[in-house]
Order: sequence, then structure tokens, then C-alpha cells
Amino acid sequence: MKGQLTSIIGAAKPPALPSLAEFQQLLESSPTFKQASENDLARSTQLAADAFKAFVIAPANSRVGFLRGIADALEEHAEYFVACIPFETALPEARVRGELGRTAGQLRMFADLITNEEWRSPTTVEALPDRAPLPRPELRSMRVGIGPVAVFGASNFPLAFSVAGGDTASALAAGCPVIVKAHSAHPVTSFLTGAIIAHVANEQGLPEGIFSMLYDEGYEMGAQLVKNPHVKAVGFTGSLRGGTALMEIARSRPEPIPVFAEMSSSNPIIAFPSKWRDDDAAFAAGLAGSITLGNGQFCTKPALVFLIGATRETADAFYSVFDEALSDAQPGTMLTETIARSYQAQTAERAEIDGVGARFFGEKPSGEREVQPSRYTCSSEVFLNHLSELSEEIFGPTTLFVEVATPSEAATILSNLSGQLTVNFFAEESDLVDEAGSQLRTEALLKAGRIVFNQYPTGVEVCAAIVHGGPFPATSDGVSTSVGTLAIDRFSRPVCWQNAPESCLPEAASGGA
Amino acid sequence: MKGQLTSIIGAAKPPALPSLAEFQQLLESSPTFKQASENDLARSTQLAADAFKAFVIAPANSRVGFLRGIADALEEHAEYFVACIPFETALPEARVRGELGRTAGQLRMFADLITNEEWRSPTTVEALPDRAPLPRPELRSMRVGIGPVAVFGASNFPLAFSVAGGDTASALAAGCPVIVKAHSAHPVTSFLTGAIIAHVANEQGLPEGIFSMLYDEGYEMGAQLVKNPHVKAVGFTGSLRGGTALMEIARSRPEPIPVFAEMSSSNPIIAFPSKWRDDDAAFAAGLAGSITLGNGQFCTKPALVFLIGATRETADAFYSVFDEALSDAQPGTMLTETIARSYQAQTAERAEIDGVGARFFGEKPSGEREVQPSRYTCSSEVFLNHLSELSEEIFGPTTLFVEVATPSEAATILSNLSGQLTVNFFAEESDLVDEAGSQLRTEALLKAGRIVFNQYPTGVEVCAAIVHGGPFPATSDGVSTSVGTLAIDRFSRPVCWQNAPESCLPEAASGGA
Repeated sequence: MKGQLTSIIGAAKPPALPSLAEFQQLLESSPTFKQASENDLARSTQLAADAFKAFVIAPANSRVGFLRGIADALEEHAEYFVACIPFETALPEARVRGELGRTAGQLRMFADLITNEEWRSPTTVEALPDRAPLPRPELRSMRVGIGPVAVFGASNFPLAFSVAGGDTASALAAGCPVIVKAHSAHPVTSFLTGAIIAHVANEQGLPEGIFSMLYDEGYEMGAQLVKNPHVKAVGFTGSLRGGTALMEIARSRPEPIPVFAEMSSSNPIIAFPSKWRDDDAAFAAGLAGSITLGNGQFCTKPALVFLIGATRETADAFYSVFDEALSDAQPGTMLTETIARSYQAQTAERAEIDGVGARFFGEKPSGEREVQPSRYTCSSEVFLNHLSELSEEIFGPTTLFVEVATPSEAATILSNLSGQLTVNFFAEESDLVDEAGSQLRTEALLKAGRIVFNQYPTGVEVCAAIVHGGPFPATSDGVSTSVGTLAIDRFSRPVCWQNAPESCLPEAASGGA
Repeated sequence: MKGQLTSIIGAAKPPALPSLAEFQQLLESSPTFKQASENDLARSTQLAADAFKAFVIAPANSRVGFLRGIADALEEHAEYFVACIPFETALPEARVRGELGRTAGQLRMFADLITNEEWRSPTTVEALPDRAPLPRPELRSMRVGIGPVAVFGASNFPLAFSVAGGDTASALAAGCPVIVKAHSAHPVTSFLTGAIIAHVANEQGLPEGIFSMLYDEGYEMGAQLVKNPHVKAVGFTGSLRGGTALMEIARSRPEPIPVFAEMSSSNPIIAFPSKWRDDDAAFAAGLAGSITLGNGQFCTKPALVFLIGATRETADAFYSVFDEALSDAQPGTMLTETIARSYQAQTAERAEIDGVGARFFGEKPSGEREVQPSRYTCSSEVFLNHLSELSEEIFGPTTLFVEVATPSEAATILSNLSGQLTVNFFAEESDLVDEAGSQLRTEALLKAGRIVFNQYPTGVEVCAAIVHGGPFPATSDGVSTSVGTLAIDRFSRPVCWQNAPESCLPEAASGGA
């Protein structure tokens, strides 16, 4: 590991891992990274295609061992991550340790999942040789990996949605080699993670093409990666603009491939008076916490709050309580300068819209990556008149309160929003079971991947029942999840074997009916 | 039912069903159909969106009753179909009765599937309120319908892949209203089927928008249907050109939607000498039957046969045996004039390629919809030099024999083909278990949705283990199946409920953990 970081092309010669002291020295030298070459891309994809053939229906133990090995090795390097992530992203140490635990936990969750071949949904239909008019052949089906996967990491989760994040873990679990396009916001963290994965692959004697990581200063290498014919699927977490650009590239290939992009969501909260008015302090405090968590840099940050039954007086009273809850808030350092500048521009623009009230909190920012928390207010009329501007996601610590008269009006507004990762109700049970409440819940079901009751959307539980996805533009495909065990479905497809001799069946598909 | 057939817009006023005698009179009058209007489209899609809200998480019994009701009513009208399908498509009565049984069977299979809510994969993760550092909320997930589905029927299966075919059955089973674009090759059959479905929906008191059927003289109404914002997914069976056109429309919408198109496949047979040389008569007879079944108008017709280990002498000897098996073949009437003309043009063009041997069977065709069966031969070198022309699907009774030297050469050729519905081995077990055989099986796994051993690909078993799909261009998405119970996955997506009161959960998601 030298002053200039280089791409990792296969696991045959993993880069040397420095001591912690050397690593800290390296960090202080502000290392740059070297753009991956066309040759790097060609080699990594060819190696991945070769590895896939060896890996696609191999018994689970090699993949289980790989996933667990990566989890262990990441945890062994905890102090390295505590050194480099705050340095590169301004995220605090506690967050780094939490995210490391989540990342290792995800890898182990997929290892547990594939230990049992049930994830493949193996299904056998027995032969009926004497059936009339035609005999039935024996048919066996199961899910198999889709092929090499290109993974584009996110800026806001340098571990859990990056080089060793959920996309990589679920793709490897499905038997798919992974080629990561490292995010330029955390090149050292990416290098460290990539080197750890390559070391584990090498130590375990896995096919060398099982993992590669490419550096890209701009967008060209990423675009070439998605165009490469060996690549069969794409995982992406990031902006709507970035995700739709990759979708366009993937669909224009001679062989179109799926892009699983998690992109954009306002995560609307539908709040009833029983909560925002009658329990204002608790609701305001929780909401302020959810909005400012990680400086609002979560895809599940609630960016819209609909206050049902708001009058001028009750709404203003609530804003006072909410502003009080944020009164101690101070500017926070964002992940990148670009994100900070976008926040500054978008919040300033929003404050200019007629009929929109705005308030910023804390002192004026001093650094280029710093931003002030903010909140906006408007009527439902103003909101619908400026639907596209006001429902656009602003990545950062801000939200917009919309005053609506009735649950039915809220349902109408919800039906006008685009797809969401989450729709959230703050309500008493009795608010939700009458006709208007039922209508609201149906609209939520049509719009969201996750429907939350009396909890804030930030904090995504990694488990078998989570859905972190939703109709477009929450995700590119409108149906998948990028978190939880169901994420493996994205990188696999069903295959059927008809009348196959036992010796020609993969292990997971053979055995008793 | 009058001399001019009209679109069916919702089930509120289903068209009157004539007596069998009246129906036969109608047929003889060569009825035309009336182009659906923009208003028809707007109403049918709005009705479907409304119906979806009522239907999306309704208990299964209404959908079960609907599917079974359609199956019963179709069978009650067997004689009607025996009258109109041969008239419109030239398919013989036995085929009509067989396809009717399959169609009713598919509807009942999905009814059985959804009787048990397991198809939704309901999953519960219990709350852990005392977990440190953060409590875990209760999370419940299950699959729900994706929304109104546009179905484009196929010309070659007027029942099983048309108005009441597998796409319609699986969409309705998932809780999705269906709007069918009727195929212009069988308008009377479409009308009869659509009227039957609308009657059943009306009798059972289902939301009127649960089913509509639109007539379209050209492609404009179908395009508008795919563009309509209420439509959330598309099912299509047909040509590569038609399918990719719909994909392009669907992806260019403000909200892109999935197109599940089953399009094009050569269904290569990889034959070892142990079969094509040592058991030539049986292999040739079976192959001739598979190629001419239904005049070769099946998506699973084997269009490529690789003869491993062929020498000039052994190949010629086999062609004599094969030609003998087809010596009694006579011209057959194709589904439409367009299909017959395409076959004539494509087969004539193929015969002109240098190095390609051609033979046509039977007398010269007399009618405009008639074609002669044919077969082609070439070396692997000629095949690879003309890969795109020679691997293009020709819909009809024809196949191409390619002489290859070794299993490894066959594997290389297979790796150069695009995605397939099926790859088929004719081999002894011992042919397939050595290194070259294993390589061939891996290439087949990468290319196909179904891998068949010592059976012909025609004849698709409708069951829980079938995969009738495969990598692009076999299907648009490369991962789905349009036959069998797994087809329901196309029209559903997972949704998660977090911390929901029991009263706010759909029935299928509630209950014990």
C-alpha cells in the first residue's frame, strides 16, 4: 500500500496490508488513486467470467467460508476503519463501529442463508411415465447465480453499501463474482476493504476472478463496466441521476441486463393530530432526531411530513415546538463537498418558492463541507402546485411540512407522489381503520416497499422480512430490495433440468423429490 | 355478438354469448373487429386501477373463485372453440381440445397455488423491544400484486398464451387486473374468451375493471396501453421485434415498468454420436416429429442441431435417414399469411448461403398460408462465419444441422450463441460426465432456462418446476418464466409492514410469527 492506490484485479496477488501505524502514515499523506485502465477492466471481467463457470453451482461451503472469512477479517481491521472512515467521510467513530458490525452481520446473514440450499427454492416434479395421453418427465428447478455483477458503492455507507456491502454480499452468496467500482469519496476505505476481500479469497484458494475493484476518477470506467458483455447485472446505491444513467447504458447493450439501483425517496410521514398535535413534543423530538441523524444523509430520511387536520394556529404551534427541538442543532460536515454544495443550492432554491416558509438552524457554516439543518412549511395547495420541486429529495438535514385538511386529502396527495422506499404513519389505531384511514393505507401500499407505523423510517433492520426498495424511482426495477435476505433474489434466476441423469444435476438440485 | 366485434371494457356489461348455432353463423360471416378507441383505453385502464385498489390485498377466495370460474366456463364452451380456432388458425381439433385442457389446467393450478398464501412468502421477524443498543421492531413482509397488467397474446397459442392464457392467469392470481390486447390473428376466439371472462367476473360480483380486452388493427393502441400510467407491468409472447419494441416503450415512460416478453429461441440440440450415429433412426424420427409438430410454430422448436463427431460420411448417412423420416411430409397451413411469407422468405435466403445445404419436403405449396418443411446443413466453420443469420429463429417446420468435431468445439459454439429457452442433450450419461461434457453442461447452464436430456424441447410441462424463460433474447428480463407456478413472481413484489397494529395488516400477513 503506497502513496498511490491502485485497482485490485483479481485475487491472485492481493496488495500487501500495512501495519496500523503504516496505515495511519499513509492516510496522512493524502494518497491519490490511479484510474483503472481499459486493460484492468478487460482482465477483471474476463477473470470474473472464468470464475463464474467454476463457482456457479459449486457446493455452498466455499461461498459460506468466503463470506464468513470476509466478515472476520473486516472486524479484525476495525481500528483501521476507525482511522480512515472519519478522515474520509467525517462520519463519527461510533457510526463506523456500528456500520462495521452491520456489514459483518450482513455477510454472516448471507452465509447462514446459503448454508441451507432452500434459498434456491429447489423443486422436484416426479416423472409419470404412464400418464396418458403423454408421459410426464422428471423436472427439477432451482435458482442459480446470474453471472458476474458490477457493484457501485454509495458515498453515505462506506462499509454497509460499499465494497463489502449488501450488494457484494448478496451477489457472492448467489455465486456471482463481483467487480466493484470504488466510490471516489472514500478511496482509502475502499482500498482497505478490497485488499481484505482479495486476501481472504486468495487464502481460501478461490478462483482469482471472484473479486476485483476498479478506481474511476469520473464516470467512464463505470460506464464501460456496465457495457462489458461479461457483466450480467448491476448493483447501485446513489442518486436518481446516477442510477438512471446506468439503467440507460444497461438497456442499450446488445444483451440488456438488469440494474438494481436504489435511488431516491422522500419517505413521507402521514401524521394525524393524535400525534403531531396532541403529543407534539415527543413527535417533534423524534422527527428532529431522524432528520439530523448522520446529517440527514440517509436514503430513508423523512423529507416530507403531512400534518393532517392542520389549521394556521395549530400548525404554527407545532412549528414552534419543532424549532425548539432543533434549537441546539449546529452545522454538520457532509460526506463530500459536492453533497454540501447541492444541499446549499437546493435549500436556498426551495426557500424562494412563493408560499413556502423556511428556517435554518445554528450558526452560519464555516467549512466548505458544512451545512445548516433546515425545515420548510407550506399548504397542500402550494405543495401540489410545485409538486416536482417540493417532492424532490434533498440529501441532508432538512424536511418539509405540508398542512393538509383531511386524511382523504392526504390520500390524494400520496397518490400523486412517485414510488417510495417507505411511507410512515404516525397515528392512533383508530385513525387508520375507518374508510379514510383504509384508503390512506391502500395508497401507501401502492407507493412503498415498507410501511411503518409510529416509528421513523431511518434505521433499517437487516433481516429476512425487511424490504429496502419500492416502486420507481425508489428503485430502478420497482420490485427488489437491497437489504435483507431477499436481496439475493436479484442476482439469481431459476433454471430447470428435465429428465437429467443424477450425475448431471448440481448437488443442490439432486436428491429425493 | 354481432358481425362486428368490439372491445370489452370492464365486466359491468359483458357481451351476450350466442348459442352454438348462432356462433357458427357468425363465424361464417367472417366478422371484422372494431379498433379500440382512445376512450376505450382510458376507461379500461382507469377501471383497472380502481379494481386493483379493491383487489390488491383482498382475501384469496375471490381470486380463487374467479380463476376456477373461468376454467369451468371455458370448458363449457369447448365446442365453440372447436368451431372457431381451426377456422381462424388452421390448428386441428385435437390440438384445440388439448390446448383448452392445458388452459383450464393452468387457471386451476394458479387457483390452487393462491389458496395457500405461501406463494406470498409471508415472513415475520418478531420485535425485540429490549435489544441493545437498539430495540428491534416487528417486521412482516409478503408479496403483493404489482398493479394492472397489460397482456399481449400470442398467435401460436390462441388459448394457452392468449386472452385467458398463462400471463392472464398468473396476473389475476397475483391480484392484478388484466387488460388484454387481442391478437389480430384470432379475433373471434379472443372475443369469445374475453366475453366468457367478463361474464364470470360479472356473475361473481368482482370489481368491473378486473378485466378488459382491446382490439387493435395495428400497433398504436398496444403502444398506448404500455405507455398508460395505470399499467404497471406487461406480459408478451411473440417475436423479438415485437417484444423489444414494447421494452423500448416501457423503459421510456416517466415511470419505467417491467416487460416480461418471451421472444426468441433456437433451442439447440447437442447430439453425441451415441445417439445421432448409433441410434440414427430413433433420433431422426423423434427430431422430425418435434420440428414439424404444429408446423414448427412452437417457441421450443429445435432450430439448431449440433452433430458432434460428424465426418462427411457419417453426416451424409444421417441426413439420408433424417430425410427418409420426413419423406411423407406435406405442406402445412400456417397460423397467418404473414408467418407463412416470413418462413418462405427466410428459408429461401438461408438456402442461398455459401456452404449451406438445403432440402425442402413434399409438394409445392398451393395456398398462400402453406409452407414446405425444410432442413439445412453446414459445417461449424460456415455456422460461425454466418452466426447471426444462421442462428436467427425461423418460425416454422425447419432446422439446421451443424457438423462439429468435438464436444469442446460444441461448447465453444454454444458460448457464442445468445440466450435460449432450452438447451438439449442427446447423449449417453458417459458422454456428459468427463471434462468436455462438464464444460458443455456449464455452457448450457449459462445460456438456458431449461436443460433437457434425451427428450425434445417441444412439449412444455405446466408445473411447479418448469422454467419457460431464459437469458435475453429468450426473454426480455433474462430471469423469469412465463409457464408454471413461478410465473406469478413476475406480477408481484415484496412489501414490508413495520410495527403495524394487527388491524392494519392484510389478512395474509397477520397471524402468528
